[in-house]
Amino acid sequence: MTATTPAGFRAAGVAAGLKASGASDVALVVNDGPDAGVAAVFTSNRVKAAPVIWTQQVVHGGLVRVVVLNSGGANACTGPAGFQDTHATAEHTAAELTSVSGRAYGAGEVAVCSTGLIGERLPMDKLLPGVGAAVRALTGDGGDAAAEAIMTTDSRPKTAVTRGDGWTVGGMAKGAGMLAPGMATMLCVLTTDAVATPETLGAALRAATRVTFDRVDSDGCMSTNDTVLLLASGASGVAPTEAELTDTVTAACHDLARQLLADAEGATKEVAIEVVGAANEDEAVEVGRSVARNNLVKTALFGNDPNWGRILAAVGTTSATFEPDEIDVAVNGIWICRSGAAAEDRSRVDLTGRDVTIRIDLHAGAAEATVWTNDLSHGYVHENSAYST
Amino acid sequence: MTATTPAGFRAAGVAAGLKASGASDVALVVNDGPDAGVAAVFTSNRVKAAPVIWTQQVVHGGLVRVVVLNSGGANACTGPAGFQDTHATAEHTAAELTSVSGRAYGAGEVAVCSTGLIGERLPMDKLLPGVGAAVRALTGDGGDAAAEAIMTTDSRPKTAVTRGDGWTVGGMAKGAGMLAPGMATMLCVLTTDAVATPETLGAALRAATRVTFDRVDSDGCMSTNDTVLLLASGASGVAPTEAELTDTVTAACHDLARQLLADAEGATKEVAIEVVGAANEDEAVEVGRSVARNNLVKTALFGNDPNWGRILAAVGTTSATFEPDEIDVAVNGIWICRSGAAAEDRSRVDLTGRDVTIRIDLHAGAAEATVWTNDLSHGYVHENSAYST
Repeated sequence: MTATTPAGFRAAGVAAGLKASGASDVALVVNDGPDAGVAAVFTSNRVKAAPVIWTQQVVHGGLVRVVVLNSGGANACTGPAGFQDTHATAEHTAAELTSVSGRAYGAGEVAVCSTGLIGERLPMDKLLPGVGAAVRALTGDGGDAAAEAIMTTDSRPKTAVTRGDGWTVGGMAKGAGMLAPGMATMLCVLTTDAVATPETLGAALRAATRVTFDRVDSDGCMSTNDTVLLLASGASGVAPTEAELTDTVTAACHDLARQLLADAEGATKEVAIEVVGAANEDEAVEVGRSVARNNLVKTALFGNDPNWGRILAAVGTTSATFEPDEIDVAVNGIWICRSGAAAEDRSRVDLTGRDVTIRIDLHAGAAEATVWTNDLSHGYVHENSAYST
Repeated sequence: MTATTPAGFRAAGVAAGLKASGASDVALVVNDGPDAGVAAVFTSNRVKAAPVIWTQQVVHGGLVRVVVLNSGGANACTGPAGFQDTHATAEHTAAELTSVSGRAYGAGEVAVCSTGLIGERLPMDKLLPGVGAAVRALTGDGGDAAAEAIMTTDSRPKTAVTRGDGWTVGGMAKGAGMLAPGMATMLCVLTTDAVATPETLGAALRAATRVTFDRVDSDGCMSTNDTVLLLASGASGVAPTEAELTDTVTAACHDLARQLLADAEGATKEVAIEVVGAANEDEAVEVGRSVARNNLVKTALFGNDPNWGRILAAVGTTSATFEPDEIDVAVNGIWICRSGAAAEDRSRVDLTGRDVTIRIDLHAGAAEATVWTNDLSHGYVHENSAYST
């Protein structure tokens, strides 16, 4: 149930020594075709890691046959030398694949993803041999090994599979902090054996990430390395409609996004902020994101305190359409705020569980959106004050 | 050295029983004239507390002779009944002052400020007798008692005095959390015995708050109750120029803003983010605020980690003019990032002290601005998960 579940893909994960722990840290996903279609979504951070800049160029032509990924170093803020390292990684990956398969691979078909500490060069003397080992370890059931090799502070690998009629979408993701606006901080490789043009893949992927990864806002911090790739082998011989592809890719993204949320650093709550009655969807998202990023709301949730006053204060900082004396707020089903003032008894709200639903009715229209976040806990402070990303 | 240091002012602080602790919780500042000029700046949060809505109306005419303040309850999100409570407080204050002084006071001359828990009605049966007691306790050296009565989670009262040539500015403030965009969450009453029109007072106050309170962003959370008032008695008989008044009011605001930062809930660091080389001042502030609000930067500072990669990632989320490969970053004087990549040895950065200076050179122009913030600590999480605001 991984990135190698769809037909036409092989993967591997090996330990190259980038991680001091000795855990696996280099992953490879190879699309054996017959097709080599690709679509991608990247971080909107203007400070982009070298592999993001490289991969943006590579996917431009719509054809990618290989993704090489490493944990143990983000290769971000490393200057021109860091970009050379990414280029050399792609060249080496193509050369090794060519030598073992007898089929010709070019660096321009190799996407590169990196994750780990920002600002330090990658140890190329370890990474390149690791790439060679990964090429020789490629198998048709290597998806689990690949998913493990891209973990950083993740406590567990994250994989998903969703199925169409005669075709399949598989995927893996990593990310446990720096979960962020515009995209949860993460690497994600999705695979499918559906037959689809790069244009259709791009439309499906953008539609899927817009309502899944884009709406996970664990800590408001946007990474320099976020990359989501969708590779299509066409090996099923089935060409779904764009709508069918979108639905199935969205389901896989939703599954992975929830796994990211569940594994967020130090979090004790998974919080769905449902904004309803908005004038339009953008305003619903703006309100949801404002509440998701409010440290006073997040610490209150950590303390099992249904503090609706802090929620209203967060809503009040947005430009969305609403009247302060018309807002209703429910926490886990109890409408503790009606018309902008206290309503049902707040002691009736049960916040002892891990899942929390905050429902905000703006009474300004018919649009709605859900944004997912976590609480702000001692664990988050501990992990992020002790660990350098 | 308080709000009663300038000539023409009396103040008081008394315990009315709003705080469970029994500490003082009602404050009064009275301007005995001869002038009664006023200027004010309020929260830009669209969810405004009843006293904010009331006081916005009162100051509109430019004349205020009394400020009544309470801690122990914000009177925010309390609906029309909450507004009635504020109105009744102003009426009662005016009536009590009239009865003890023989001089006629009207509710329309009484500004009201409240701070404490959002969403609960004030216990008027305690507040109104407290107002009466405060009226009877008014003295020409009551500034310290008033500053104590407005404290919530503050660990100490905050007062300041700055002097012009023959005239004086005094002030008090409260605020130790919810320090926020657009204005540090707080109440602040400034007094002066200068002679000045409401227009001059307004221009001086806006200029002062723009570069002081507006640039303190402790935790990115904006309150429903922020109010800064400047009252002028004219008792010195000296009429400074607008520039002189602005400078002296700015110095008082700067002093109080730094006291707020020093007393921020649970913080272990006071951080000045100096952005230089910006294309314009707005962009410098945008960059400073983005870094100030980034939880990963803030937790790194708590951990004494000079994590410049997280700083660059925060800068990268802004729309300011810069090239990622031209940014320099110094922490406490050590330029650990030059041209967007690692430079001086990060181990040379000493973060063991309480004061931290982050200097970011965008190399995009000649403008600069400083934004002040705190780290994100276990203490912040503890205080805000346990305390309802």
